Amino acid sequence: VKSTRGNFFEDFVEQRGQTLRHPTPRTVTEADATLYVALYGDRRPLHCARTFAEGLGHERPPLPDLLVFHTVFGKTVGQISLNAVANLGYADGRFLAPVYPGDTLHAESTVLGVKEVSSGKAGIVWVRTRGLNQRDEEVLRYGRWVMVEKRDPAKPTGAADAPPMPDAVPAAELVAPRALRVPLISWATGSEHGWQDYVPGERIDHQDGMTIDDADHTLATRLWQNTARVHFDAHTMASSRFGKRLVYGGHVISIAWALAHNGLENCLGVLALNGGAHKQPSFAGDTLTAWTEVVEKAELAGDAGALRVKLNAKNQRDEHVLELDLWIAVARR
Amino acid sequence: VKSTRGNFFEDFVEQRGQTLRHPTPRTVTEADATLYVALYGDRRPLHCARTFAEGLGHERPPLPDLLVFHTVFGKTVGQISLNAVANLGYADGRFLAPVYPGDTLHAESTVLGVKEVSSGKAGIVWVRTRGLNQRDEEVLRYGRWVMVEKRDPAKPTGAADAPPMPDAVPAAELVAPRALRVPLISWATGSEHGWQDYVPGERIDHQDGMTIDDADHTLATRLWQNTARVHFDAHTMASSRFGKRLVYGGHVISIAWALAHNGLENCLGVLALNGGAHKQPSFAGDTLTAWTEVVEKAELAGDAGALRVKLNAKNQRDEHVLELDLWIAVARR
Amino acid sequence: VKSTRGNFFEDFVEQRGQTLRHPTPRTVTEADATLYVALYGDRRPLHCARTFAEGLGHERPPLPDLLVFHTVFGKTVGQISLNAVANLGYADGRFLAPVYPGDTLHAESTVLGVKEVSSGKAGIVWVRTRGLNQRDEEVLRYGRWVMVEKRDPAKPTGAADAPPMPDAVPAAELVAPRALRVPLISWATGSEHGWQDYVPGERIDHQDGMTIDDADHTLATRLWQNTARVHFDAHTMASSRFGKRLVYGGHVISIAWALAHNGLENCLGVLALNGGAHKQPSFAGDTLTAWTEVVEKAELAGDAGALRVKLNAKNQRDEHVLELDLWIAVARR
Repeated sequence: VKSTRGNFFEDFVEQRGQTLRHPTPRTVTEADATLYVALYGDRRPLHCARTFAEGLGHERPPLPDLLVFHTVFGKTVGQISLNAVANLGYADGRFLAPVYPGDTLHAESTVLGVKEVSSGKAGIVWVRTRGLNQRDEEVLRYGRWVMVEKRDPAKPTGAADAPPMPDAVPAAELVAPRALRVPLISWATGSEHGWQDYVPGERIDHQDGMTIDDADHTLATRLWQNTARVHFDAHTMASSRFGKRLVYGGHVISIAWALAHNGLENCLGVLALNGGAHKQPSFAGDTLTAWTEVVEKAELAGDAGALRVKLNAKNQRDEHVLELDLWIAVARR
Repeated sequence: VKSTRGNFFEDFVEQRGQTLRHPTPRTVTEADATLYVALYGDRRPLHCARTFAEGLGHERPPLPDLLVFHTVFGKTVGQISLNAVANLGYADGRFLAPVYPGDTLHAESTVLGVKEVSSGKAGIVWVRTRGLNQRDEEVLRYGRWVMVEKRDPAKPTGAADAPPMPDAVPAAELVAPRALRVPLISWATGSEHGWQDYVPGERIDHQDGMTIDDADHTLATRLWQNTARVHFDAHTMASSRFGKRLVYGGHVISIAWALAHNGLENCLGVLALNGGAHKQPSFAGDTLTAWTEVVEKAELAGDAGALRVKLNAKNQRDEHVLELDLWIAVARR
Repeated sequence: VKSTRGNFFEDFVEQRGQTLRHPTPRTVTEADATLYVALYGDRRPLHCARTFAEGLGHERPPLPDLLVFHTVFGKTVGQISLNAVANLGYADGRFLAPVYPGDTLHAESTVLGVKEVSSGKAGIVWVRTRGLNQRDEEVLRYGRWVMVEKRDPAKPTGAADAPPMPDAVPAAELVAPRALRVPLISWATGSEHGWQDYVPGERIDHQDGMTIDDADHTLATRLWQNTARVHFDAHTMASSRFGKRLVYGGHVISIAWALAHNGLENCLGVLALNGGAHKQPSFAGDTLTAWTEVVEKAELAGDAGALRVKLNAKNQRDEHVLELDLWIAVARR
């Protein structure tokens, strides 16, 4: 059979410890950055203004961190999560180097552990995914675990190998971004709030809301060459327990992160994805709002400091749909 | 509070005479031009064909005039019209210089006048907005007035300072575009009609219609980094008097202008926005058609002449939704 | 009348043997390629990965073959098919040279024949369309026949001139693409299947499905500057026999071809469009799945071989909507 249906849990049991190289390298371009603005309304000047990026010492605007994440994630779907029952969590996500238009990304995933669930019908697979550029430099790394269907639910695999995943990336290991202090960038960001102004325990209610349409979440998800059927095939999904297409979780993350600009204007990047969960699925027609809780602060080399934040989103039914634990960089005053 | 809800009428009373610099400079790229084609079906060769642009002496295709307008307009929303009740009018809009892919635009607005409405619940704010490139050259300027909510409707401001706005940009002040005569460009435009063939009083019924979908008007409006909630938040808008998301007025303008290509094929650009009004809101599902009335003619230096036109659009209920008063350049025969 | 409604059958009777040059040359860019990925989820590395394209001897990724087809086709609509009743068929389609970002395409069509239908209400028009780049090199050629309304159904034209159209492009006339053998490209394509592994009679059921939304088919069709009203004007179409907007047939082709990547990963391009028909119209809301039948094999110079395939799509009602007869290139093992 030439047209593949992806790996099942039993395949990962065999591949434990192996590294899968994912097909289709992808050159990311200025057009990806522009489409990202159209899809999310992102207005962080580092990614949309050449003058600002040059002021920070970049030759040209680097691509949005989450665009890099989605591109790398999309590559993994065909081998990792085509038969996923649920995407369970992320850990130890690190943004390691800027990605510029013209860079070509590829991805690989190492199977860290496998554990059959007690019902025997599925299993949990832990992977560490790496995103690499055309010089094989690692630009992104993250751990992820996902529940995957078994090919033969009746036949136990005995797999019971759950690897430890860290709670957070240690602040000392964060890669500090190129930064300037707030007075030098506020002409572009529109805010005078710097790293010093954020305090643990603070909650920022971002003031805007965004409704998801079917065409925009599918455009986004195809852009990342993500092939998960649940996002694209309304006919099959009509007879699923959801009744309709699911929105790619990363689309929700990018909406929340774009909404979070209003209140975090001097943020210069996501440094780490410590963890996170999609607490409820999202669907076309949902309207998302976002809030951020400041959890912890850390020093960084240079003109920015780090904030550990919880980025949250809820829908119009007040259901909590997203909670992400991030380290982000914010310019100092 | 770090996440802002924008300025209210009282803020403008204090800012009278001041100039607000708007955040988020934006580098416009070839990708913006391509998305503009996808959003509107625009087929003016100056903006989509390098060979044509080079033939007119440009190094590369300049970006569509209205794309520049929308980009500049989008920057102003956060400070000018986040609390707008209604967008009342435009005047004295001038397209002053071509914008090329790679240029970085920023915007600023001067508060020209403020006048509380008789009910005391809101006020009208007049601004002059300027769009500037990375060399601080003015590429666009326009006047705009907008009704804005008061923070405290119970407390009179006494503001009663309505500035005069000109009826039209004088023809002598129009910036003539690079042009060639019709015989030299008709291979690309497909029409032999030149400036001489248009007469005041003439009406051109453009032959096509365009239906608006939610995903395309929101993609467009996010592309311009416009943050007005009324376009994006279907949940909040469901309890507004409209019952649903409003389409950004500029989206309607660009649809009408794209439809107007069939009948104005040798137009080489918009020179001035003398005035205009959105007479009815537009919504997803509306189908727009357009017509143009020729009002006046003027000579220009070089191979094009100017036409003063009224560009109109109506929806499928025959409601007149748009009337814009423009100076446009049309190649001479 | 300056705003045109396109040609009617009688016009083609007069234009028999003539070549119509179509307006609006179009520079295709990296952004068109990126939007193509967003619209279809295409993941052929030749078009999205610079490293892969360079490995095959291209200076940069060429644009997807079907993107070139849609761009050229779109140019022809205003003069050929604005008054089409039905798009009847394609023949002798040849992809002759790669198109790169920055190339400017224009198109022309020669009227090969005209034949009034027996009812006298319409006629069939045969054209040969050529797509040319800025150096006037032919990059694409195809025959097409289409049924077009008469301006005056009551007045017979006597036209009865149906030209012969070939069943297929002879294998010896196919332009072999730049190729490398499977072991040298499988890192990027993810498949070890080569030309030798496909056998006539084989059927590949591609494993994914794609639902069409109104916003994405209209974005795509506007991107190609296709002006056919049936795709854009929901109001007018509501009173047509279809009751709603029709999806551009080329959108269906690109969806089917993107789905076909899963099972044809080492395909390096479409070489010829031997024939094809849209057997049923498609509408927003339809979910398409695809299958490919291998019909014939032929040798090519270099590291790829040719497969003659039938590319098919059906909708969620199991209606066969598309059957295309193609020659494609597949890398050898």
